[in-house]
Amino acid sequence: MSTSFNPPQRTLMGPGPSDVAARVLLALARPTVGHLDPQFIDMMDDVKRLLQYAFRTDNTLTLPLSGPGSVGMEAVFVNLIEPGDKVVVCVNGAFGGRMKENVLRAGGVPVVVEDEWGRAVDPDKVEDALRQHPDARALAFVHAETSTGALSDAQTLAAIAHRHDVFCIVDTVTSLGGVPVEVDAWQFDAVYAGTQKCLSCVPGLSPVSFSERAAAHIRARTRPVQSWFLDMNLVMGYWGSGVKRTYHHTAPVNSLYALHESLLMIEEEGIENAWSRHRHHHLALRAGLEAMGLEFLVPETERTPQLNAVRIPAGVDEALVRRRLLDDHDLEIGAGLGPLAGRIWRIGLMGQSCCKRNVLRCLGSLEAVLADLGHAPPAGAATAAAHALYGKEA
Amino acid sequence: MSTSFNPPQRTLMGPGPSDVAARVLLALARPTVGHLDPQFIDMMDDVKRLLQYAFRTDNTLTLPLSGPGSVGMEAVFVNLIEPGDKVVVCVNGAFGGRMKENVLRAGGVPVVVEDEWGRAVDPDKVEDALRQHPDARALAFVHAETSTGALSDAQTLAAIAHRHDVFCIVDTVTSLGGVPVEVDAWQFDAVYAGTQKCLSCVPGLSPVSFSERAAAHIRARTRPVQSWFLDMNLVMGYWGSGVKRTYHHTAPVNSLYALHESLLMIEEEGIENAWSRHRHHHLALRAGLEAMGLEFLVPETERTPQLNAVRIPAGVDEALVRRRLLDDHDLEIGAGLGPLAGRIWRIGLMGQSCCKRNVLRCLGSLEAVLADLGHAPPAGAATAAAHALYGKEA
Repeated sequence: MSTSFNPPQRTLMGPGPSDVAARVLLALARPTVGHLDPQFIDMMDDVKRLLQYAFRTDNTLTLPLSGPGSVGMEAVFVNLIEPGDKVVVCVNGAFGGRMKENVLRAGGVPVVVEDEWGRAVDPDKVEDALRQHPDARALAFVHAETSTGALSDAQTLAAIAHRHDVFCIVDTVTSLGGVPVEVDAWQFDAVYAGTQKCLSCVPGLSPVSFSERAAAHIRARTRPVQSWFLDMNLVMGYWGSGVKRTYHHTAPVNSLYALHESLLMIEEEGIENAWSRHRHHHLALRAGLEAMGLEFLVPETERTPQLNAVRIPAGVDEALVRRRLLDDHDLEIGAGLGPLAGRIWRIGLMGQSCCKRNVLRCLGSLEAVLADLGHAPPAGAATAAAHALYGKEA
Repeated sequence: MSTSFNPPQRTLMGPGPSDVAARVLLALARPTVGHLDPQFIDMMDDVKRLLQYAFRTDNTLTLPLSGPGSVGMEAVFVNLIEPGDKVVVCVNGAFGGRMKENVLRAGGVPVVVEDEWGRAVDPDKVEDALRQHPDARALAFVHAETSTGALSDAQTLAAIAHRHDVFCIVDTVTSLGGVPVEVDAWQFDAVYAGTQKCLSCVPGLSPVSFSERAAAHIRARTRPVQSWFLDMNLVMGYWGSGVKRTYHHTAPVNSLYALHESLLMIEEEGIENAWSRHRHHHLALRAGLEAMGLEFLVPETERTPQLNAVRIPAGVDEALVRRRLLDDHDLEIGAGLGPLAGRIWRIGLMGQSCCKRNVLRCLGSLEAVLADLGHAPPAGAATAAAHALYGKEA
């Protein structure tokens, strides 16, 4: 017979999950109530309002789906794309590739606009693709590529989509809460996110938002959405407005308590302040990493602050470094995905993980491990560089 | 600005979620670790082992999917059923109807075997349907219908499926942990469950298990599964054996801590003892409900002990009764679904909710509310009947 699982207390600086605040974990553990309990339904309404705040939108159809970010991605595609629909999909990393796969599985026809892993999406290529495919139904791109840390110019890309009168589908899994995401001002039609990145909630929910134009398209479909669970026409019956809710599936009650609490924390901080905080600690981390001689994968103007991909120095056993960080320092950083496996580390500064304590801890630990393996510059250079940058503020 | 949500402390005796033990809520609130953390992966292996114990199976492909029970249902259908595949679907309540809908959305052709809501599935009709449709790919039925409390003879139905050489797909959402579910002995090919019923965990995960025959079928598919998220060929890469796991999606880490803990509780009790406990308290509840003059929807030999559907007495405002129970007694019981809305209450005795304290509390509260509204027999008759039954043991 087994015993209870007591996880170690890690510092989470990988590509997500990020550190979860004690108040969010405590919210998670509050007593379970029924998914149709009137008090729970009031809280659901508040979650919707707080998500509208985070997404900067008045979209009515804004809610958390009962599954991880990949569920949000699939929901957007199966609701908006029908067999034969053409979708211009930007692929500059693993998650763009996953979007393409979702288009295919929905029976759509992907037109791939490819950019190098580690670069932003090139708006000129998108413009060309939409010009060549005037029958396209949608443009889909990843705002901040979790596999590389490249940040694309979502505002410009969305404007191109609208000029060509196609739906603009945006993956904001890593961007939401870390950099500006302006769903209404930039006119996104469908966005999805995850809870375990810059919202610093536990993993398992996927906030989504659909513009009125997209919602109307979904309501008007004659062919049923291929997924019963993700059919927004049914999901709306439970998450809709008013006291009368139609049972669709049993909501993940406790996870929603946690999401509510983590969104409250963002509202309390002010989302613009959260964006600045991510930028601020990224600069300190960058100073430290560069002082160690590490190079960023992404050119400076295309970097997203909350995910820092750096190249593995020659001769370093990268998996050993990560294992040492985890075992000796209780610190998690991320490995590379796909073609970048073994070539980069991904250091996250997401949500609650984005703080001075973590920046200094990460630099100090990485320096110590690399020094121990005979790879590092004089000990202390990295943390000194970060301290210097923090010191300038004082 | 809002404030933290502090839910009331309810007693959950509806159709799920059921009461969650404090030790499960505390497990839920343990520090989040990464979904590829070696210690977390060890725990995942233990969750698989414990699910095999609960399902009574050696199936390798036994794991919790990252979504509620409806996700388990959809996963089973989209993996096993391809466009054009014929499926004999038994509909004797809301969840059989949902199975039919899932077959349609997977492009399959449902052959519906209908039984009255409140009755078990009739094996003779199933035999006839499979005889008339020798080209069927699968038989699908709900073991314990959550909408009515009818328990079908899963062993007999599975034997019919095997005689006709079709896959046997079983919804065990409400049955798992409450009544015998013998995946191996009864030769089920694909089963799914929920965590918020007799496992008494928080809602949001769906344990599934596939026989080797079903897993081989999925591996051999040439047409990709229509859902990327639910494609078991991809999910297996993360939940498979060995230390090497392929990232598929970010697992709901904290919910899995809770599931681990709730499964441990079942292992500690012994699953046969859990089954007896459900039967035992059902008999006490039944004695009390009958003493109040309430009638069961389902004939005695077809009832599942963990969900007691009783007819609303004439002249009773059923919604008002439920509201009073919730507001004045912090007690949740369930309403009827679909054609049974307004006609029945569903009183759950699931998992941790299935105990003497809850039986007496429910009877006492229901008696008090009905008396207050002028509908009840002499106060105390129901609890006295239950006490009498409990007393016999002593």
